[in-house]
Parts: sequence; structure tokens; C-alpha cells
Amino acid sequence: MTAVLQNYAMGQWTPGSGKESEILDAVTGDLICVAYSGGLNFNAMLEYGRAKGNKALRKMTFQERGRMLKALALHLTERKEQFYKLSYRTGATRADSWVDIEGGIGNLFAYASLRKQFPDKPYFVEDEPVGLSKGGTFIGHHILVPKEGVAVHINAYNFPVWGMLEKIAVNLLAGMPAIVKPAPITAFLTEAVVREIIASNILPEGALQLVTGTGEGILDHLTYQDVVTFTGSAYTGRLLKAHPRIIQEAIPFTMEADSLNSSVLGEDAVPGTPEFDLFIKEIRKEITAKAGQKCTAIRRAIVPEKLVEDVQIALGKELSKTAIGDPQAEGVRMGSLVGREQLKKLQDQVRDLARETPIVYGDIDKVNLIGANQDKGAFISPIVMLNSQPFKFTHTHEVEAFGPVATIMPYKDLGEAIELTKLGKGSLVASIATADPTIAQEFAIGAATHHGRILVLDNECAKESTGHGSPMPMLTHGGPGRAGGGEEMGGVRGVKHFMQRTAIQGSPSMITAITGVYQQGAKQMEKDVHPFRKHFEELEISETWVTHRHTVTEADITNFANVSGDHFYAHVDATSLEGTLFTGRVAHGYYILSKAAGMFVDPKKGPVLLNYGLENCRFTKPVYPGMTIGVKLTVKEKVAQEKRSEEDVAKGIVKWLVDVTDEIGETVAIATIMTMVKKLDQA
Amino acid sequence: MTAVLQNYAMGQWTPGSGKESEILDAVTGDLICVAYSGGLNFNAMLEYGRAKGNKALRKMTFQERGRMLKALALHLTERKEQFYKLSYRTGATRADSWVDIEGGIGNLFAYASLRKQFPDKPYFVEDEPVGLSKGGTFIGHHILVPKEGVAVHINAYNFPVWGMLEKIAVNLLAGMPAIVKPAPITAFLTEAVVREIIASNILPEGALQLVTGTGEGILDHLTYQDVVTFTGSAYTGRLLKAHPRIIQEAIPFTMEADSLNSSVLGEDAVPGTPEFDLFIKEIRKEITAKAGQKCTAIRRAIVPEKLVEDVQIALGKELSKTAIGDPQAEGVRMGSLVGREQLKKLQDQVRDLARETPIVYGDIDKVNLIGANQDKGAFISPIVMLNSQPFKFTHTHEVEAFGPVATIMPYKDLGEAIELTKLGKGSLVASIATADPTIAQEFAIGAATHHGRILVLDNECAKESTGHGSPMPMLTHGGPGRAGGGEEMGGVRGVKHFMQRTAIQGSPSMITAITGVYQQGAKQMEKDVHPFRKHFEELEISETWVTHRHTVTEADITNFANVSGDHFYAHVDATSLEGTLFTGRVAHGYYILSKAAGMFVDPKKGPVLLNYGLENCRFTKPVYPGMTIGVKLTVKEKVAQEKRSEEDVAKGIVKWLVDVTDEIGETVAIATIMTMVKKLDQA
Repeated sequence: MTAVLQNYAMGQWTPGSGKESEILDAVTGDLICVAYSGGLNFNAMLEYGRAKGNKALRKMTFQERGRMLKALALHLTERKEQFYKLSYRTGATRADSWVDIEGGIGNLFAYASLRKQFPDKPYFVEDEPVGLSKGGTFIGHHILVPKEGVAVHINAYNFPVWGMLEKIAVNLLAGMPAIVKPAPITAFLTEAVVREIIASNILPEGALQLVTGTGEGILDHLTYQDVVTFTGSAYTGRLLKAHPRIIQEAIPFTMEADSLNSSVLGEDAVPGTPEFDLFIKEIRKEITAKAGQKCTAIRRAIVPEKLVEDVQIALGKELSKTAIGDPQAEGVRMGSLVGREQLKKLQDQVRDLARETPIVYGDIDKVNLIGANQDKGAFISPIVMLNSQPFKFTHTHEVEAFGPVATIMPYKDLGEAIELTKLGKGSLVASIATADPTIAQEFAIGAATHHGRILVLDNECAKESTGHGSPMPMLTHGGPGRAGGGEEMGGVRGVKHFMQRTAIQGSPSMITAITGVYQQGAKQMEKDVHPFRKHFEELEISETWVTHRHTVTEADITNFANVSGDHFYAHVDATSLEGTLFTGRVAHGYYILSKAAGMFVDPKKGPVLLNYGLENCRFTKPVYPGMTIGVKLTVKEKVAQEKRSEEDVAKGIVKWLVDVTDEIGETVAIATIMTMVKKLDQA
Repeated sequence: MTAVLQNYAMGQWTPGSGKESEILDAVTGDLICVAYSGGLNFNAMLEYGRAKGNKALRKMTFQERGRMLKALALHLTERKEQFYKLSYRTGATRADSWVDIEGGIGNLFAYASLRKQFPDKPYFVEDEPVGLSKGGTFIGHHILVPKEGVAVHINAYNFPVWGMLEKIAVNLLAGMPAIVKPAPITAFLTEAVVREIIASNILPEGALQLVTGTGEGILDHLTYQDVVTFTGSAYTGRLLKAHPRIIQEAIPFTMEADSLNSSVLGEDAVPGTPEFDLFIKEIRKEITAKAGQKCTAIRRAIVPEKLVEDVQIALGKELSKTAIGDPQAEGVRMGSLVGREQLKKLQDQVRDLARETPIVYGDIDKVNLIGANQDKGAFISPIVMLNSQPFKFTHTHEVEAFGPVATIMPYKDLGEAIELTKLGKGSLVASIATADPTIAQEFAIGAATHHGRILVLDNECAKESTGHGSPMPMLTHGGPGRAGGGEEMGGVRGVKHFMQRTAIQGSPSMITAITGVYQQGAKQMEKDVHPFRKHFEELEISETWVTHRHTVTEADITNFANVSGDHFYAHVDATSLEGTLFTGRVAHGYYILSKAAGMFVDPKKGPVLLNYGLENCRFTKPVYPGMTIGVKLTVKEKVAQEKRSEEDVAKGIVKWLVDVTDEIGETVAIATIMTMVKKLDQA
């Protein structure tokens, strides 16, 4: 019996209905399954996502969501071999599939770890507070809360696993559910992963739904609390972006589309330098990996005019070593395209391009294969073209031949190289191979307006470089103009796409209440018990300890100079102060800080385990002998920590505002210090 | 002779051509000027803006751009009276015009000051670097460079000055030029301001152009390097957002549209409390200021059901004190709408609304005026409606009557109040009057998904509060859904809308070269001359000083405990360490920091003026007696400072990476310290 591709809608696996299409093995042409284009109630799916998935996820804290992602990543890792097996049928080699499958799972791990940059709350506070008044009684801040809708991800066919996981990792950490709509031709692999995700029961109900059909009408019921991301052809992307519902409801729409990415060979990177070799290898890799079906692949190799021939020869040599054929066959380094329809389109594109820019490597119609039949699978040889007049023949910058195809073109000087990269009218990524920091700087700053990412390849990073073609979870992925104008991932940046930013204004006390972080000027709660005697749970935000006071003497300064060895003239040489900002010997800033600790620390053993670090310390007023200092120590923020093992002490980080004032109440130094504090509950 | 409203295009003042319209005084109905709808070559204007304005601005540093904004703000402040005079003709009182004119100039000042958060470079580096490899030889970062196009601002009629200045302040600081298209009816005031800006010669050529006509076709020639912002009706905004050119080129489009903002009276804020009075005053102010023609005005007053009558009475009393009429007349607190067409539309809207929600204060057709004629000017009385069943009668949440109109509606509990605010389907702002932090927190977090800004009004902030209706330059302005989904201003956030974010990847040395900030792991340049002997200009990024070393002794710890007074058990009590993370008496973190300074400081008087502060300090490994520490001091970043006066010492802030290592080369503490360093050039 023929398998039928399923959808996962409202908690049920269900086949579609309507028009049937056949999904074929990219290598053998065998039927894998059939899929149906219609039959889903998108409005009900969205309502279900909002009512179940969103409600559950938005209540969870970032820490809980992050741990959920980690569990999911571990769960999928254990089952990865079954995905590899299916992935061969998309034409991908094991190395290609590694990027898709383990790269995708890696994104889950990366976003799981990102929880450490968020509080243990469902929402978070962004950046620093903003003073809005002279007297300090009116301030502002920004918070971000999860949007109340569903993230709809419309994905491309080239990364059926990564394409889904890189996106849902982000919306799930943000606290939003998703509906994923992969491209039908490789959706059988996405479906297999979703089956494992659902079966694991790791995600709350409604957090993930899957549409394997064409998804027509999927945007018709969206509201302003939903988010749409699109990866695929510019044509389709633009159509969807102008969808009346998207416009009417002002729905955030992130698009990642075609892009004519380029790689530049620096003038210093002549044959014989490591950077020349790195450049050649990188281009070979980007042409052959996934048979060039990557939105980030290098389409344009921009090289100094005098090195064009060297590059052509070296690249040809590298490419000729690439064995092509059945991705499961021994030694094969490059598989097939995802399907023969894609192959046909690519051949037409290249034939068209070749009229202006001749093919200097490869053949559109012929390719030697290992263990595969060219008449059944979607195979093509790597193709290199040469565009000797890249400012004249501009098709090269406009037609994205989505396969193992790249064009070499010459440049005269770096300015021209930058101009050529820009003729792509906005790309996802550009790279440059150079060992010269000046060239790297000029290129990066000059080309940045047109690129979402720029990679500098040199010998120093070569061993660890993740390469031109790999978007990294903690860096933004996306580019301006032709590349769609969208941004994905990027660490915390990406999470914000699924949250609403709200400016909040009010008294410091109210902003403290809303943010859960003590704001300067807010009411302080002075307590009788020293806070170092309290466990993590017992400490309250705004709780304040006012210390005894100390009159600074010359002896203090001298003693501190002796202990530290810091004999800077302003502290020890009374004859040197003319023309300085000081009216007398001034106490060391670090003395003030150290003495403050001497005053606020409660010495006896207790829940405070250690002094962890220090932030935003400013010395705001000179302290001279005779001045009297004291400290107000206020609980500013609490960050619970996860136990690393059963035996680990349960603890958290407490951030304290240390306000050191003089005898007239003016601040002489201010800092945020961090201590590690034991929890009462050691469970 | 009748005045003709001019455009400023390609460096020339020019009248339009085509259809003529008359622009009338909002108070007297007199003809002010005529305007023409067509005749401009938008393609040429854009090219001119890109070629002249963009080229000039993108070369300037943030400091230069910021000083330019400050000069502009001072220039306009000196000429403000002429703007006030014109502003009366839009129907605005002096207080209304203050918000428009001085509020607008205030935005210039605010963005001028924001330069201090940016480097003295044309571009900037965002957030922290990202490690991308285990060995640390491959890292990532994000930079932002000015986009290469023009910002096109399409503005509303209600704030002819602020509407322009709040937007151009941001794009100019970012390094982009602008074309401003105000709404024709009040464009004569915008034109007057632009005349002064151009005459001042403070902006580079091409930085600002003005379109006073209808601007048809203004979007037809935009490219992906341009940015569009729109403030006005949702209908027009949506039309423009779906413009083929906007979609085709993936042009960022920021929209700020209609919004049914609400204000909630907390259940605690009963009559007699300061918060009750604040609530009433705020609503009165938001109804009458600019005759209610503000996109942020309170349209919905959401009050506990038992307080509806109290609110109705108190508000009526307040409103009855508001004198209405010629804005120049003595005692007048509320002027007119901008025109009779707007008045007619408002009257129709209110008449329509009143079928469901009766008018409880004011009269649509009648109003007592001081010094004005109801038949000539665009006057209307403040109108308050009552919606006793706000979940049933939902027009109240959908029709934005853009004038002095608000509706009172009851709620049962806070959850219901939040639900009511959300029925606006996305608003610019909501406020709540309460003295209860728990209510404030629950409201803010609960309503945040649907609001761009939330204000908590209480007695603590009342004196300094800038109020419900005032977007602040350092906070984001914009809201989801019906409010358009855009974001403006917000301090640094806003600047980013006019810049391209690019992820950069490479070796730490290359990322150092591109960012101009030392990245950990980059090559260090060890020098023979101590860096404290060098002036600001002489110090180079990556320059490193390796200090002598010091073996820590028990005496050091004891002495430090005595000098600081910090006798925390882990440092001084050798019997107490069981169950701690320490294997012996451990040196104080602040001792390590202080001793590090003792090693890296060069004591003799020189260019280093003072120790300014400390950031990102972490104690990474305990230091016990017998361990030997040393410091690598590396120039991380340089920030030139402006002289405050002629006599001021010319200087800059130098940020140093302080890496304290032990005898096996492991880091025990790391920090960034800041010193103030004299410049060689004291000019």
C-alpha cells in the first residue's frame, strides 16, 4: 500500500484531501508516498494553537522552555539514524544530512542554552532603565512578553529538518507555539521528525502542528498576535507578504529568499598562501554541499583579475575530485537535487546564463555517476561559469541557479569587488579570504549595507571556521533586498521576533514591581536581619541593609597603597596634584570598593557562598581623608541556578546594588555585585 | 498675492504644479496659502538624496551627527516664536504648540545626547561577541552601518513639527538623509521649520527634502536601501504598505496608525485618593489637548463598575472648566480641530457611536466659544460617552473618533479590565491609575501583548510624569495590530531602523580589525613603553602590557582583611571551610583586583588622569596563598570625549582588558576597567 503523508492538526494525525501528488525518491525516482493538497481547517488549527499551545507555553518561564528544548534535542539525537535513512531519499549525502539533521538539533541545543541569558520568568526586561525626569521619580523601561498567537513557518525544500528546527527553537523559547508548513517534496522527512517530537510528549499540547499539503489558505485567518516566517522563492514570498490578511492585521512577516551570495579572494591571497587554498576549498564545498541547494551557497566568486586563471584551474582540479552519485554509495561526495523538476529548471537557467557567461567547468547534460542512473535521479555535474565583464553581463548577479553552480568574475581593486558583491542587490552572506586586516576591515564595512552576514576567512580561524554557508544560531540569518529583508535567529535578537516589546513608565517603585528588578530611586525596605544571613528564597527584591560608617584617613590610603602596591601619584604624592582634577590625596577607587565590602559583608559562615563578580562600577566623586562613607546594600535581582548534578548545592545568583555615599548623602561609588547564595530548599 | 506652499527638492525651493488646493486657517476660515499636488520628480529627489545626503552623512561619525542635531536644536529654539505664531492657525493653543514645537526640538536634543552611547565612528558594534568554536579562534559579532538610501517619512496633520523632527532626529543620527511628506493641511508650519533648517546650513546638502503636495508616486522609485515610515490613517497606511515597490524591494515600512488607547482606574483608586484625581485630570488633559487630535489620546476610560458615576461626575466637572475658542484668546484651554472637513467626519462618527453609547457630556453641534465663530472655525465641544455594556457594544473599541472624545466603560475585575483594553486590537498606549504595585504588575504584564507603551500613574511619579499621551524619545513609540505594528524612537533601538545589521565572523584578530574593539583571543601587541606613559592618541587597540608577577601570601590576605575590614570567613577563618567550594583560605576577589592595579599601574604622573570605573568583572578561579599572579593589560576600546569648555582638558576614555592569570596561565579574574586619558593635542 502506498504511504500517505500526514498532517498533524489539533492533536490528530490526519491525511489531507483533494488533489493527490506523488513524492518521488530523488535518487531512484521510486514513489515514496502520496500527499494531498487540501482538507485542513486552518482557522481551527490556529485557534487550537492559541488556546492550547500558546496558553501553556506563555506560562512557562524561559528556564522551563529552555530545558524543554534541551530534552527535545536529546530525544531527537537518540533517534537521528532513522532521519539519516530517509534523508538519502532527498538526494543528500550523509555529510549533507548532518547539516540538516544534526545542524537542526544543534539549534535546539543552542537555544536551550540561551535560556541562561534570560530570567526565570515568562517575560523579560530589556536593556537599561531610562530616566524620564530630573528628580528621578519617573522612569521608563522595556519589557517583552510572548505574543498571544501562533508562529506560522513556511519552509523551503532544501532543509526539511533544520528549516523547521531552527525556527521552532526560537518561537518555543519565546513562548509561542508553531504551525510548520514544509515544502511538500521533502516533507516526508519533516513529518518523520514531527512524529518523534509529538510522540515524546515533551512539548505541551498545541505547541506544534504540521501541514504537509500545499497549505493554500493558511494565512487567511491570522491575526495581529501571530507571526509568519517564510523561506523560499522571492516570487512566492512577495505574494504572501502582500496577502491582505498580513497587511490588514499588521502581522510581522519575516522573509528569507533568493540570494546571489559572493566570495571574494583578497589581493594578498595569491597562490601559495593558505588563504588562496581556503578560498578554493570553500567554493568547492559550497558548490557541492547539498548539490548547491543552499540559500547561502556561493554563487559568485569574485577574484583579482590577475588571478582568474589560477582560480579557474585550482577550482577545476578540486571539483574533478568530487565523486557524484547515489549518496549512499561509498566515496560519493555529492548527491542529487531534490527532484527532476528542480533539475529541469536549473538546466534551463544555466543554459540561459551560459549565453553571456560561458561554462568553464562541467556539463549541464552529462555527469559521471556512481551507483545511480542519470535518467532516474535528479543528478547534475558541478558547473562553473566565467563572467569576464561582470559590470556588463549582469544576469550573473540576478539569476539564482539553485544547484551546484557558481560563476567566477574578475575585479580590479577592492572598491570594485565591493561594488560587485552589491550588484546582488542584497544577499544573505558574503565572504572574503584574506590575511590582511586592513582589507578585511574595508571590505566588511563597505559591503555590510548589502549583506546579512560577512565571513572573513584566514589561516587563524581556518581550522575552526564553520564556513561561508552555515548560518549560526547566535548570529542573525537573513539579508536585505533580494534576500528578503528578514532576520532570523541571532540569539536573543531572534527570540524578540516572537514577543511584544512594551515600554513601561512610572515611578521607580512601580517599575520595580513590574520588572522584578530593583530600580534606583524605588522604595527600599530596610531590614533588621543582615541579608547575608538569608537564603536565596528569603531575600526580597528592594530589601536593603544600611551599614555602619567609616571616616577615611590618610592611614587607610597609605595602608591600601602598601597592600595593593598601587602607588599612583594621585593617592600617595601630595606634591603632584597641581593641574589634576584632585584637590588633595585621593583614596583609591578600589579602596572604596574594598572598604564598602568590609562594611556590607557579614563575616560569619552562612548562605552566601562566594563573591562572583562585579558590574557597572563607577567612581562618581573623589574621596579625601576626613570624608565619611557608608553603604546601602539592596537586593536588585535574583537569578536561580540549575543544579548540575544531584550532589550540587542548590543555589542562585543574587545581584546587589552597592551604593556608597559620603557624609552628605552623595554617592561616591556605585556598583552591582554578584554573590552566589545557597537555597533553603536543597531538594 | 496668495502665498504658495513650496517643496524643497534637489536643493531648490519650488512650487508644485497640477491641481490647486486651498489651505485655510482652522480658527477663522481665512485662506493661508494654496498648494499644488504634483510636479515633482521623485526619482531624481531620491537619487539626489542618496548621492549627496547619504554620502555625506554616512561618512560622519555618530559624534559629528549628534553635534549637528544639537546645533540644529539650538538654531530652531532661537526661532521658535515664529513657529508658535503659525501654529495658532492650525487651531492649536500655545500649550498644544509647545508639545509640537518644543517637543519636536526636544527630540533633536535627546537624539543629540544619545551620541554618547555610540562610538566616534560612522558605524557601531552591537552587544557582545559570540564564541563560535571551542578553541576560540573563530568568533562572531554584529555591526550596524547606515543604509545607503533615503528615509521617506509620510506624516500626519496633527503634529506638523514634532512629526517631522521626531523622525529625522533618528535617521540623521543613524547617518541617513530624509524626504519628509507632511499632510498638506498643516504643511505650511512644517515648511516654515524646513526653511529655517535649510537656511541654517547645519545639515549637509541633500540631508533633508520636503514634499508639501499630495506626494502621489513618492514610493514608485524606492529601493531596498531606503526606509519608509508612515503615520496616519490605517486605511492609507495599509494601502502604502502593500505597494508593489515596497513588497518587491523588501523595503522596511514602519507604520503608526489609528489606535483606541485606554486608561484604567485601579480598584484601589477610589474617590479621595490621589490616584483617582490623577486619573480624572489625565483624561481631561487627553481629551482637550490638541482638541483630542492625538494618536495617543485616551479614547476609552475603563473604570470599576461601582465608580462609573463618580468618574462621570468628576470628569464632567473638570471638562466644564475648559474654556474653548480662539487659541490666542486669554484663558482659552482648548482650540479647534485642524479643519472643517475633519470636524464634519468627527461629528458623523460620534453621531454614529452615540446610537449605542449615549453622550453624557457635551454636544456634537453646539459649543460656547471665546473669540471665535462656530460657523467659520473647526470647533467642537469635548464629548464623553458611556458604554455600559462594553463587551456587547464593540464599536467603542473600533471607531477612532479623532477629536476631543472619550467613552467611559465599567469593569468587574482586573482581568476584565485587561480584556477590555485588548478589544482595541492593538493600541499605542494604555495607562492605569493605581497605588497598588500588585495591580500595576498584573495589569502591565497582562496587557503588554496589545500595547506599545504602558504608563502606571501614582502619587510617587505624579509631579514628574510626562503623561499618558507623550511618546518619549528614549522609549519605543508604536503598537501592534490596529496601531500599525511599527516601532519608532526608543533610543538606540530607533537608530537601528535606519541601519543594516550584519553578522561578522572570523578570527578574533580580524573581528578586532573590523570592530575597532579588542576581542579576546586576538593577537596582542606587546610593547616596551608602559601604556600609562602614552596619551590618548598614542594608544593602539590590541596594545598590551605584561606586568611583573606576585606570589600571594597569607600576609597579603590578612593585611587586605585589615585594610578593608572584610573578614568574611572564607578569607580569614581556616577552620570554617568544610562544605564550601574552597580548599583553603582564599584571597579576596577585591584583593586580586586591587593587586592587579598595583601591578599594572605606572605610578608617576602622566597622561592617565583617573580611574573611572569597572565593568564585567568576574572572579573565575580561587586564588590561594602560594599562587603567583600577573596581569595582561590590553587596550580594548577608545572613546574620545568632547571638551565641555575651552579650558577643559582634551581627553578620552580608554577601556582596558585586565586579564589576571596565575602561574599556569589560567585566568583567575577578568575585568574591563576605564581610565580617563589626556590627549596629546590639547587644541
